[in-house]
Amino acid sequence: MRHFLIIGHKAVTSDDFPLNDMPGSAGRMDILCRCVNNALFLSHGMRRDVQVHLLLLGEPDPGKVIRFDGEKLRYLNPDERSSGSLIKKALAKNAIEKEVQSTPGVWIRCSELGILLDELKSKGIPIIYLREDGEDIRDVFTSLEDAVFIMGDHMGITENEEEMILNVGARIISVGPLSLHSDHCIVLVNNELDRTTTK
Amino acid sequence: MRHFLIIGHKAVTSDDFPLNDMPGSAGRMDILCRCVNNALFLSHGMRRDVQVHLLLLGEPDPGKVIRFDGEKLRYLNPDERSSGSLIKKALAKNAIEKEVQSTPGVWIRCSELGILLDELKSKGIPIIYLREDGEDIRDVFTSLEDAVFIMGDHMGITENEEEMILNVGARIISVGPLSLHSDHCIVLVNNELDRTTTK
Repeated sequence: MRHFLIIGHKAVTSDDFPLNDMPGSAGRMDILCRCVNNALFLSHGMRRDVQVHLLLLGEPDPGKVIRFDGEKLRYLNPDERSSGSLIKKALAKNAIEKEVQSTPGVWIRCSELGILLDELKSKGIPIIYLREDGEDIRDVFTSLEDAVFIMGDHMGITENEEEMILNVGARIISVGPLSLHSDHCIVLVNNELDRTTTK
Repeated sequence: MRHFLIIGHKAVTSDDFPLNDMPGSAGRMDILCRCVNNALFLSHGMRRDVQVHLLLLGEPDPGKVIRFDGEKLRYLNPDERSSGSLIKKALAKNAIEKEVQSTPGVWIRCSELGILLDELKSKGIPIIYLREDGEDIRDVFTSLEDAVFIMGDHMGITENEEEMILNVGARIISVGPLSLHSDHCIVLVNNELDRTTTK
């Protein structure tokens, strides 16, 4: 199972945002929507072995995690409004610490980065932090297939978050020589893993 | 200069489509919007060495080419609505055979695939046709930096188009073992070229 965890520092945590203004009043929700698309879509179908975890830290109720489960997912189309619409439906749920399902394959709960990292670590999932100066993903010969790849949004990853990520033993990996948007990085990670697992 | 040419078989050719329904009434214009984003954006800026050519073949006036010139481009944000909005502004122009500029770095004209291919060939631009069964892009050791990469939309490339593309001597290249959306292929091509030119 591949995991992608994307931190949306300003992404709103109530469902009253307009799908017509996701970059503005929804706190760059458009970035998270593109990450969902790029993590999950194949040309003719869905990547069933992928889980996307969106950590939303915007107002009014910072600290919500929306999980897209590729295996069970339905009603997702590739355009940004489609993933935005599923995010809205998740945010309309009364989120608690225990996950609740909003639409098939989409789950929401209240959580925070520290809890997420501890859970991933306790499950033995290798934690990969994507950063420009990391080890080249093409030079990594151990399997990354069951890892979680952590990325930020337009604000990147804060110093405090980075410290937490490194404290759980994350490996720092780069996908190429230039600094790219997170959704583009996801395409590159998927391709690299496809190449090692489809041979 | 890198070139991407994407064929939108149903993409509408008038400006009266709603930005709220680009997958539907705009003939999968959302695909072309994502291609524009993925071709042109870096994390902190624009790829100035990229040209995107969108060939729109939908109604009411099939055969319009919109060109995004990374060097001169302005007013483009990464969300789909932003590129959709620039496409709308281009389509509002009275397109003729000679290119006219609609907004900085965005040009439109009437044309068709055969004309485009002949122009590219006469300029000595290597023509690359992305297809799943092609030669692996990582095994291609000649430079692809100044090539044009041709892709389809949700309908792929028709038999007739493929024949035209191969008749101008296109090389068939693959970006990985799985069949991917065109916008994802563009990310992979950019990364491969970044790796060869940024060393």
